[in-house]
Amino acid sequence: MPRICLVRHGQSRWNLENRFTGWVDVDLTEKGEAEARRAGELMKAETFKPVRAFTSVQTRAIRTLNIALHALDRLWVPVTKDYRLNERHYGGLTGLDKAETAVKHGEDQVKIWRRSYDTPPPPLDDPSPFPSLTDERYAGIEVPKTESLKLTLDRVAPYWQSTIVPAISEGDLLIAAHGNSLRALVKLLFAVGDDEITSVEIPTGNPLLVELNNQMRASSAKYLDDSRAQALPKI
Amino acid sequence: MPRICLVRHGQSRWNLENRFTGWVDVDLTEKGEAEARRAGELMKAETFKPVRAFTSVQTRAIRTLNIALHALDRLWVPVTKDYRLNERHYGGLTGLDKAETAVKHGEDQVKIWRRSYDTPPPPLDDPSPFPSLTDERYAGIEVPKTESLKLTLDRVAPYWQSTIVPAISEGDLLIAAHGNSLRALVKLLFAVGDDEITSVEIPTGNPLLVELNNQMRASSAKYLDDSRAQALPKI
Repeated sequence: MPRICLVRHGQSRWNLENRFTGWVDVDLTEKGEAEARRAGELMKAETFKPVRAFTSVQTRAIRTLNIALHALDRLWVPVTKDYRLNERHYGGLTGLDKAETAVKHGEDQVKIWRRSYDTPPPPLDDPSPFPSLTDERYAGIEVPKTESLKLTLDRVAPYWQSTIVPAISEGDLLIAAHGNSLRALVKLLFAVGDDEITSVEIPTGNPLLVELNNQMRASSAKYLDDSRAQALPKI
Repeated sequence: MPRICLVRHGQSRWNLENRFTGWVDVDLTEKGEAEARRAGELMKAETFKPVRAFTSVQTRAIRTLNIALHALDRLWVPVTKDYRLNERHYGGLTGLDKAETAVKHGEDQVKIWRRSYDTPPPPLDDPSPFPSLTDERYAGIEVPKTESLKLTLDRVAPYWQSTIVPAISEGDLLIAAHGNSLRALVKLLFAVGDDEITSVEIPTGNPLLVELNNQMRASSAKYLDDSRAQALPKI
């Protein structure tokens, strides 16, 4: 049965500072690097042997992938990087910490943006104060000004169909990405409803091993680190 | 004018032990990691901005590339890994240190294997005592049993033509590889004679920046770390 592992990047500098990061290209902390190594070791212990890997164009996910592949002794596998696996674009919330956001917009509004499936935050100022959001890695791409989880899924889903699904017959696949691009994938794989998906939490650096059926839906799933697992959607 | 940078991987564990490594998948030492970071910093200071990168399927070159791209803030560029950029396959010398080789084969013979363009060492025993020489990364590939520098060039040259040259119009390109696969590239780019190429030494972790003319030959070249430069072939 085809298998994929989803790995959310380890702790980044802005995770640590509790700031909305989105498309800003923030690096891993040392703890994040250790989480990535641990993810690789867990997959190795499970004899999960990816033949290809997929990640975003954001440093924290790419480094998580590289560190995990190194721990797996499989740095040689082909890696495809695509902005469609990027984190959700947090629009005007980008760069704010949780306290600043609450002061600026009110706690109730912030809760709506975080918990609603299809309400995007206000757009980011143009020109953006964050150069990595519009640098040459996005040449030829219409960079969003803000995204809801739904808008995130609207780019993740075609990428899944066009690029990842055709590779599934080759063997185990590894996807290293972000909280919300992985949430979008989980919504697809587990057929989670719009109202439920925003409460699905994916822990960092804990590989989610999913077996797929012929319809490319999850037929079984587990976190490789039991002690840090979160509830999984019903199959 | 199109530019490429050639980077030889930093010190590996077997470089340190003075052993013939070839296709054995040995990792970098801490010093090798530092060399890779320094290579990235040198390219950044030169405002060398690769739009794509190429490497072998061997851990020490891939990690050199990843570490250098991280230092360059350009981990997001597409990376292509191919066995045709692997180190020269040292055949029956693989794993021996320089002293063991001299005892086993005599110093004069060893000098011939090291310095001749087209005399391969004796073939590696079959089955090989080194699992990474024939593991699944080489599925579908006829793994050589030994290689001269000429045989190395015979696989590097078609890869250069078919895969790297067509990308040159896109922008700066980065190639992270090995002493002998890079020597083969230098032979092509500088039109070095068979007798002279084996004495061309390429220092580790020191980016060789080459400007190319329309015939895809070097029109100018320099090492980015002056203090550790080696003589370059005449242009």
